[in-house]
Amino acid sequence: MKAFAMLKIGEAGWIEKERPVCGPQDAICKPLAVAICTSDIHTVYEGGVGERFNMVLGHECCAEVVEVGELVKDFKPGDKVLVPAITPDWNSLEAQAGYSMHSNGMLAGWKFSNHKDGVFGEYFHVNDPDGNLALLPEGMSYEDACMLSDMVPTGFHAVEQADVQFGDTVLVIGIGPVGLMAVAGANLRGASRIIVVGTRSVCVEAAKGYGATDFISYKDGSISEQVMKLTDGKGVDRVCIAGGTVATFEEAVKALKPGGKIGNVNYLGKGEFITIPRVEWGAGMGHKVISGGLMPGGRLRMEKLGALIASGKLDVSPLSTHVFHGWEHIPEGLEMMRNKADNLIKPVIILD
Amino acid sequence: MKAFAMLKIGEAGWIEKERPVCGPQDAICKPLAVAICTSDIHTVYEGGVGERFNMVLGHECCAEVVEVGELVKDFKPGDKVLVPAITPDWNSLEAQAGYSMHSNGMLAGWKFSNHKDGVFGEYFHVNDPDGNLALLPEGMSYEDACMLSDMVPTGFHAVEQADVQFGDTVLVIGIGPVGLMAVAGANLRGASRIIVVGTRSVCVEAAKGYGATDFISYKDGSISEQVMKLTDGKGVDRVCIAGGTVATFEEAVKALKPGGKIGNVNYLGKGEFITIPRVEWGAGMGHKVISGGLMPGGRLRMEKLGALIASGKLDVSPLSTHVFHGWEHIPEGLEMMRNKADNLIKPVIILD
Amino acid sequence: MKAFAMLKIGEAGWIEKERPVCGPQDAICKPLAVAICTSDIHTVYEGGVGERFNMVLGHECCAEVVEVGELVKDFKPGDKVLVPAITPDWNSLEAQAGYSMHSNGMLAGWKFSNHKDGVFGEYFHVNDPDGNLALLPEGMSYEDACMLSDMVPTGFHAVEQADVQFGDTVLVIGIGPVGLMAVAGANLRGASRIIVVGTRSVCVEAAKGYGATDFISYKDGSISEQVMKLTDGKGVDRVCIAGGTVATFEEAVKALKPGGKIGNVNYLGKGEFITIPRVEWGAGMGHKVISGGLMPGGRLRMEKLGALIASGKLDVSPLSTHVFHGWEHIPEGLEMMRNKADNLIKPVIILD
Amino acid sequence: MKAFAMLKIGEAGWIEKERPVCGPQDAICKPLAVAICTSDIHTVYEGGVGERFNMVLGHECCAEVVEVGELVKDFKPGDKVLVPAITPDWNSLEAQAGYSMHSNGMLAGWKFSNHKDGVFGEYFHVNDPDGNLALLPEGMSYEDACMLSDMVPTGFHAVEQADVQFGDTVLVIGIGPVGLMAVAGANLRGASRIIVVGTRSVCVEAAKGYGATDFISYKDGSISEQVMKLTDGKGVDRVCIAGGTVATFEEAVKALKPGGKIGNVNYLGKGEFITIPRVEWGAGMGHKVISGGLMPGGRLRMEKLGALIASGKLDVSPLSTHVFHGWEHIPEGLEMMRNKADNLIKPVIILD
Repeated sequence: MKAFAMLKIGEAGWIEKERPVCGPQDAICKPLAVAICTSDIHTVYEGGVGERFNMVLGHECCAEVVEVGELVKDFKPGDKVLVPAITPDWNSLEAQAGYSMHSNGMLAGWKFSNHKDGVFGEYFHVNDPDGNLALLPEGMSYEDACMLSDMVPTGFHAVEQADVQFGDTVLVIGIGPVGLMAVAGANLRGASRIIVVGTRSVCVEAAKGYGATDFISYKDGSISEQVMKLTDGKGVDRVCIAGGTVATFEEAVKALKPGGKIGNVNYLGKGEFITIPRVEWGAGMGHKVISGGLMPGGRLRMEKLGALIASGKLDVSPLSTHVFHGWEHIPEGLEMMRNKADNLIKPVIILD
Repeated sequence: MKAFAMLKIGEAGWIEKERPVCGPQDAICKPLAVAICTSDIHTVYEGGVGERFNMVLGHECCAEVVEVGELVKDFKPGDKVLVPAITPDWNSLEAQAGYSMHSNGMLAGWKFSNHKDGVFGEYFHVNDPDGNLALLPEGMSYEDACMLSDMVPTGFHAVEQADVQFGDTVLVIGIGPVGLMAVAGANLRGASRIIVVGTRSVCVEAAKGYGATDFISYKDGSISEQVMKLTDGKGVDRVCIAGGTVATFEEAVKALKPGGKIGNVNYLGKGEFITIPRVEWGAGMGHKVISGGLMPGGRLRMEKLGALIASGKLDVSPLSTHVFHGWEHIPEGLEMMRNKADNLIKPVIILD
Repeated sequence: MKAFAMLKIGEAGWIEKERPVCGPQDAICKPLAVAICTSDIHTVYEGGVGERFNMVLGHECCAEVVEVGELVKDFKPGDKVLVPAITPDWNSLEAQAGYSMHSNGMLAGWKFSNHKDGVFGEYFHVNDPDGNLALLPEGMSYEDACMLSDMVPTGFHAVEQADVQFGDTVLVIGIGPVGLMAVAGANLRGASRIIVVGTRSVCVEAAKGYGATDFISYKDGSISEQVMKLTDGKGVDRVCIAGGTVATFEEAVKALKPGGKIGNVNYLGKGEFITIPRVEWGAGMGHKVISGGLMPGGRLRMEKLGALIASGKLDVSPLSTHVFHGWEHIPEGLEMMRNKADNLIKPVIILD
Repeated sequence: MKAFAMLKIGEAGWIEKERPVCGPQDAICKPLAVAICTSDIHTVYEGGVGERFNMVLGHECCAEVVEVGELVKDFKPGDKVLVPAITPDWNSLEAQAGYSMHSNGMLAGWKFSNHKDGVFGEYFHVNDPDGNLALLPEGMSYEDACMLSDMVPTGFHAVEQADVQFGDTVLVIGIGPVGLMAVAGANLRGASRIIVVGTRSVCVEAAKGYGATDFISYKDGSISEQVMKLTDGKGVDRVCIAGGTVATFEEAVKALKPGGKIGNVNYLGKGEFITIPRVEWGAGMGHKVISGGLMPGGRLRMEKLGALIASGKLDVSPLSTHVFHGWEHIPEGLEMMRNKADNLIKPVIILD
């Protein structure tokens, strides 16, 4: 089969590869549409997951099932499905402990384009489809469906980790597509005020639509000082981190009230240490809880978040700023994500 | 001073009473606007809190501070304030345990028109204003402010107890003003589907505006059977109870998935037992958690929920269907609440 | 193969049956020791799970693996294993939601001697051994291992649901083997005072050893009145229910403080309704949370609770008051459990 | 009155000072016994809370009430009381949010020998005695009572933040008196294995008594490597930090499983940043939650933890290795704590 792959660190291109094999508890799917993720860029051009050769890229798509194993009960060839970026082994000890994304190893629930081939091929392999796929809700567009693989569940997970409550003031750092979903999620969890950090105008506009109330730019000085000014020195109840670097946590901790929580979903690609400022962390005593975690995947998550879109309560259409038709546009989408044009949020390629 | 009071069970009227005295940690306030609550009806006409003589009625209002004690730090005469129905003793053991509404006794955080005179007088007494009042947010109407005393915090507390999560299907039983705020709260916590039980058209319309997606009537048969039909036999993730009787829990348990949660905020005035159906409760093993609780009051709660209205994220204006001007309309408001006219949600009386 | 079975409601006896078949993700085991559970009595003599014909009884044992399917990774023939009474389908929606015991239906994680043959046969079938079995810890006796199938995880789950905190006063109703494990669990979660309800002297003695501090008998009058007397009218912080009937919840609610929690693990076999006393439940407003749930099963649970015994922090040996050797003693054990001799806690039959 | 004070950074000594004044909601107490805390050393010799002149030292004691204000309800002169190191303003916004120790400012619930004079004087001032004192349980020794001011609630709070569950493997870093109470707390929350880091033999012996199962020394190499060796490369479920420096978190994160939690109660006196190792923190995605917080104080906490000692479930007597009689021994106790003799855990001075 034909597939678009990471050839090695720094290089991507088309390859021919064997069609994946379907085990008794597996499915083989073909993508109906795919979306390009910043992680694809990290993977190819920054060696984000280490060296790989001829590994098919991609972990965001919706798809059609073409084959299922004998133990699969709820899906059959022809089913159109939502596909999460994270597809855990549900019987692992980690999943039993509530952390399915770390099934059989930290982050190891992330398999596509990491521990096996990704979804930018004519066919791709899904482990445990009963546990990991969900039917495409009636009437949902392929573009919207692609946002459910990673953008929505990741952005919302920042909000879950930060544990946003009714009336909270929330700081969202980073308003790329994941950060925008953190804004939407904070709004959907009842935040009264959502202060966002970001400057690209297409993102700022989208953030307004998703419920952001205050906008600051790192270009205007320290994030935490700007937050303190906006909040009369009180700081925020919660922080969602969806962009920045290992140093971003310094600003997050400084902007946060004692008893507050930080939820990070930004993949930190560089730096030896995340640096937590001692004094503002209360000398270890300030109850400023710091959490960071990979999105939960799996079928239940897809069904629940899919229902939010299907019911009209969450509109992800502003995310798909660039929609292409045909396999040949995948390299173009990747380049686009790499260069981040002014008006870009996400490129989606329809393959059906 | 002049005040509108419960004279005894079954009778309400105007009385003259001493102006309340301000202790070192107290405030005296005069109401700017008051709202009538169904609880006022229960109190007077059904003896909901037991016999009382010449007790000033009312626990929903916004007000102006006219006097403060020497230990009060954050409020002064002239301040316009939000006043919660529940005003705890914050240093009590119960408050320290996280249940301030039960400070010094079950439900004893509810003081207005229960353990002391209520707010339908020229002046009323507030214990611990630093802990229990909040400044009226700039630009907030008195009508809206009155909804923060009880309707918003109570309705939202059903949602908090039911612990609504992103994408949940939620059943809200009862869509009077509290139930409507449970709908709004479920929507603001990310429910994907909100099935409501109620028939009065003014309420049904308001529920639509607050995010309800499906409507059922107890007149069309059993609630749980209708829910099961709507959900393909799966049931709902969460139930908020804001109306009905001790028997309502039967339907709630039957409509609920295993692992689901029920949050009740309906005051149950009659009946010896709440009846939980054994089989549908999994013979005691179904993990269908049943909670019911009085709203949390106090200053933080008022500030947080007030900010939701002030920021435009929650619109409570549809609740105040009937607005009067002048003290003389209080008896009329009470009668109106007693008879529940077709187009009534809440009557508010502006006194300023 | 030979097996001891429920022939029909009211009758148990030996049968010959086909050895179970091992699918790709299954294991076949032979029991090394089995224990008799009160549930076995309910099942046979009270029709607790409904009519069944020639269904092999038993859900408490430790065992040796004799065959595994091709997808099984972590177990092989010859492994000696702990076997939980509850063996979920870990990829089910319910397991993903955190309620694996209700995988694919309320209580449906309970398969042995309910939805399929139990463990009182020469061989028995285990679904998903990687997810559901655990290696027998070195040096653990078979008797102790049998207590991990149901008694320990069930008793401890009462404590988990009641959410016992440091210094809490806890009421444990029922001190059969499950109730004793609730006592041990409450003690291991830091309760300062453990009031137990029970009269059989063998159980009272064991309860003392497990940390019970106060003893009351239902024969001396109402449980709640006795509790109130012992606690100067304050009531308890938490209640664990491990015995009684649907009416037991009345006493539990009455004995409980506002803000308290009830954790039930008693299978309620009879009665249309669990009755919650309205007034003492705060008229629906008292924040007395009522939960009841089947034990969590699976491998992680077995490993964690097994480690508590292996490390000497939990001594379950007082539970196995009667130990027999040989298959022929199974009927005797069942009769013993049915009649509950004065000195009986649990009968165990060693088969190896 | 006479008092032992910090004269300035680097110097401590006896001073004469005005007896504190009792406001309407205050109490004045005289200490019955005091204990010296490492924090006293930090305060005087390292300037831990900044420069202070003639500030009375001490925050660990039990006491007798000698005067109460007119608003105080539950205490009267002559009452013998437990005194927590942290005495919050219970009506503050932070207390209402569940973080009373940060009432009116981060860490500001810590008032003794920080924001006002401490307890090493003939008399000391207690804000809100109804909210902050507890009666000395009958029969409790003064030495044991002093351990309730800080050692027990702080050590246990590490365990609460780390959220130890039945059967967990817990790493406790630091086994001074606070660390020992973290060990005792982990044991009382049902840990199956408690690995401790520490070398002083008096502490190692005490740790064994409190339930530690494995002992490692930082002198034998990296903590995390030793932990990984002990746990077959799996790591621990929870980490309690009760000693070390800002760099200790590196080892904690490395030793922790994904989905694990760190609870810190060590006051971090130096260093600009706490350093979190990026790779082992899952590149921001590993769900290794990091929390650190000041102990909860107040009356309820004292009553609950006091009951654990009074019931015999927690024995704190091994902590008071050195007991003196008479005010004149306070300087000696301070020196002793400064130099940490081999056989020292805590010095207590009986004053009654």
